[in-house]
Amino acid sequence: MKKLSIDQAQPIKKIKWLVSDTSEEWLAQAIESPIEILMDHAHCERKAAGSAMQLMFRYLADPGLADVLSPLAREELEHFEMVLQILQSRGKALLPLAAPPYGSLLAKKVRSQEPQRMLDSFLISGLIEARSHERMSLLASYSPDREMRNLYRKLLESEARHFGIFWKLAENRFNSDMVTSRLNELAQFEANILSELYPKPRMHS
Amino acid sequence: MKKLSIDQAQPIKKIKWLVSDTSEEWLAQAIESPIEILMDHAHCERKAAGSAMQLMFRYLADPGLADVLSPLAREELEHFEMVLQILQSRGKALLPLAAPPYGSLLAKKVRSQEPQRMLDSFLISGLIEARSHERMSLLASYSPDREMRNLYRKLLESEARHFGIFWKLAENRFNSDMVTSRLNELAQFEANILSELYPKPRMHS
Repeated sequence: MKKLSIDQAQPIKKIKWLVSDTSEEWLAQAIESPIEILMDHAHCERKAAGSAMQLMFRYLADPGLADVLSPLAREELEHFEMVLQILQSRGKALLPLAAPPYGSLLAKKVRSQEPQRMLDSFLISGLIEARSHERMSLLASYSPDREMRNLYRKLLESEARHFGIFWKLAENRFNSDMVTSRLNELAQFEANILSELYPKPRMHS
Repeated sequence: MKKLSIDQAQPIKKIKWLVSDTSEEWLAQAIESPIEILMDHAHCERKAAGSAMQLMFRYLADPGLADVLSPLAREELEHFEMVLQILQSRGKALLPLAAPPYGSLLAKKVRSQEPQRMLDSFLISGLIEARSHERMSLLASYSPDREMRNLYRKLLESEARHFGIFWKLAENRFNSDMVTSRLNELAQFEANILSELYPKPRMHS
């Protein structure tokens, strides 16, 4: 396929949480395997819903947490259903896919003691959302398939709010310097994981 | 409190899955502790959402399962949020509550081999929904608190569909005789659990 020149096309809104930009290699890999990316995306949405619910269940006594995480989990499930419908309309069943190491490597960074565990959980969920948002923006602009571009444009509207939600959850409960310094560490770690392209097409390869 | 005469008031629609009717003792206990019942109800809704998602993730390759379980999980979360809002409007935070043995005793009845595991999971989820529906009908009629009656009336409209969903999932995938005979066993077991009133007010005490 022809080389994509990202920087000559529509600018992708910079996500301030992320310390690296997604590479052209990732975009080329994703565009070459739209169905596999869709399937992986469906898995990402269902996992994000599960993870929001898990957080809300873990900290049930925290006022205001379920108020935002329950609607967020519902929205992730709605997205899961949207992606599933496109897969089905193309005659594809959702298959299990080997997950790239991204999620499990980030999860290992969650410290086991509270309240650090809570802070890390918020920041890592936020970073994953921010990266998803950045990559969906790329697919919304560069996917050669109009239905895919439309799907990603639709999802972007609400996905944009998601990393803001985790950011606010962290900011409202922790000292601002502590949030910023831990976010910097985790964002650097997140960028390092993605610095080498995972061989299989994934949302977070 | 005065004795409730259930049989002299509005008739409660008979749920055909259930082999026993809820006792007056349960209703009296529930009406005496509306806040504890609300909290337990919130926990039931979040657990039901979690359980629908767990089923959908376990059988991802099954066509048509996520199509109904994902919207169902979203609806359970919506109900969770509605209950939470009423609690908050009354100045109550959702507290963790000791669960009655109902759910864990039923879960033990799920056979470990497939496809029996799937059938049992559907039927037990359906039975729990059917019992919730029966008890919400009682609260919608007999709660002395108008806001509670309205809440339960609102929830009933959609809850009525939920046990039908599990019933259909079972019927579409299993031999009809097998479904009926296993349902009879499980429904009898479910009624036995509830034959003795749990000392604390719970939706499934």
